Amino acid sequence: MNKPNKIIAAVFDVDGVLSTGQFLYSPSGKQFKVFGPHDNDGIKLLKNFTQIHFVTADKRGFPITEMRIVNDMCCTLDLVSEGERYNYLNMKYGLSRITYMGDGIHDVPILRDCEFSIAPKSARREAIEAAKFITQNNAAEGAVLDACLEIIKRYFK
Amino acid sequence: MNKPNKIIAAVFDVDGVLSTGQFLYSPSGKQFKVFGPHDNDGIKLLKNFTQIHFVTADKRGFPITEMRIVNDMCCTLDLVSEGERYNYLNMKYGLSRITYMGDGIHDVPILRDCEFSIAPKSARREAIEAAKFITQNNAAEGAVLDACLEIIKRYFK
Amino acid sequence: MNKPNKIIAAVFDVDGVLSTGQFLYSPSGKQFKVFGPHDNDGIKLLKNFTQIHFVTADKRGFPITEMRIVNDMCCTLDLVSEGERYNYLNMKYGLSRITYMGDGIHDVPILRDCEFSIAPKSARREAIEAAKFITQNNAAEGAVLDACLEIIKRYFK
Amino acid sequence: MNKPNKIIAAVFDVDGVLSTGQFLYSPSGKQFKVFGPHDNDGIKLLKNFTQIHFVTADKRGFPITEMRIVNDMCCTLDLVSEGERYNYLNMKYGLSRITYMGDGIHDVPILRDCEFSIAPKSARREAIEAAKFITQNNAAEGAVLDACLEIIKRYFK
Repeated sequence: MNKPNKIIAAVFDVDGVLSTGQFLYSPSGKQFKVFGPHDNDGIKLLKNFTQIHFVTADKRGFPITEMRIVNDMCCTLDLVSEGERYNYLNMKYGLSRITYMGDGIHDVPILRDCEFSIAPKSARREAIEAAKFITQNNAAEGAVLDACLEIIKRYFK
Repeated sequence: MNKPNKIIAAVFDVDGVLSTGQFLYSPSGKQFKVFGPHDNDGIKLLKNFTQIHFVTADKRGFPITEMRIVNDMCCTLDLVSEGERYNYLNMKYGLSRITYMGDGIHDVPILRDCEFSIAPKSARREAIEAAKFITQNNAAEGAVLDACLEIIKRYFK
Repeated sequence: MNKPNKIIAAVFDVDGVLSTGQFLYSPSGKQFKVFGPHDNDGIKLLKNFTQIHFVTADKRGFPITEMRIVNDMCCTLDLVSEGERYNYLNMKYGLSRITYMGDGIHDVPILRDCEFSIAPKSARREAIEAAKFITQNNAAEGAVLDACLEIIKRYFK
Repeated sequence: MNKPNKIIAAVFDVDGVLSTGQFLYSPSGKQFKVFGPHDNDGIKLLKNFTQIHFVTADKRGFPITEMRIVNDMCCTLDLVSEGERYNYLNMKYGLSRITYMGDGIHDVPILRDCEFSIAPKSARREAIEAAKFITQNNAAEGAVLDACLEIIKRYFK
């Protein structure tokens, strides 16, 4: 079913969605996050059709996330705590006008109420139960590319 | 079965429970440990109901563990060798008054004798056989969140 | 079937083929790639029979890839964007005279048109559907050794 | 079957046996190897019964391996190329008097000819077919502990 104007933005959580969710710690704290190979291909394709936006609640790891998403993938990124994310997205876009991809227990209300929701195969079971679409691949193994292809198929073809 | 006052502390091993158990080595020695995305959500929830305490036997990796648990998660942490851990926990809390989550062969006696014991899905089979509850997820993929939700359900609801 | 002179080069993609495809990011950007243990054994064997060539589209990670492939494995490596790779390989060798191993959606046309195509078990399903041979092991867990043994068996024995 | 004096040494390969076999590369080259949580428990137990010796063919990663095995685990380690390993072990101990744990295609002759041979579950299929015992766990997830427990059970109990 084509709904070409319904979606005004595709919103993605970062940790456990674009990254594996794992953090490498040294005695100096959180040092590294792990990203995967295929996802930027999907983001580049989806950029032809809609606005893309990333949100993260990880304050300590923000400089790492920013380097990957803003500097290297040229996407926008906001630091929004999990408790504020539902209202933030509803105020900014209207939940009924976005797709949202998330993996955690705090993502459940957004996954339930947005227009089209996606969880990576490796998400928490609570997120998997709440999402409308589950990717074939795990986070950082192509889950975001899977999501982008599905969003294009459903809304922009 | 509600036993609201029975548990005075929830005790967690670190390596292979909160971390994957893997160590990244450089020519300078143990440099990094790998932690996961969902577990701190569980710890925050469980903190509303009981005291939380971490124990580790890893002396060389202690500064890494301390940064994650004490500095970034605001929990308490003790260095206790595996041989001394049973008596340490029994003296400090009484094994019948704690929950304990562990993954190794040295954890088996504690897992057998504490009030409620948990092993991550990825634990050694010896720990899995001794524990009363096995999490749905592997260590550093949400096993500690699984454990926290189960402890709340059994003892604090 | 022996076709001793048909293959003039064995060409390999890097990320998701020789490496896991994962990138470790710090606040300074892409810092590490992850390679596996068995693949250089395969490359050394295959070098006795044909020319070996690696291609990558990863500009930011090129110094890492170069260190592994050129410095430590003594192979040749070119930076070729995914869009240009088909024509580049066709001009340089002729697709009908090479084997090609790739894992991503952009590799599909090359996998379809070269003489013998290989995808690691962990490749995107689009690559797996297009390739003539799927390895028993995942990328960085021996997929390239699997590929080398198969190429030798088919073309050089 | 008890053969108490038959085994004079337990010999272990390193990469893909004690480590995952993965290498983290930066633009400066091989920087990290990944080791797991349970294996040193097994080595400590087995030390009560026989001599333990590690061998590696990885020249570039030797300082990393040395830090883990010699400095932190207090075991002996030799750099022996894969081609020389069979004769080296046969001269030093006699293959009929050692156990050997290995994971690669070059380990096959030693796995066939030593007194008792072990491959981790994650080994190359060639090693798995040649070994007498396959561990329940993958390399760096407890495979060496599995091996130590099996050696003790078979030869020292």
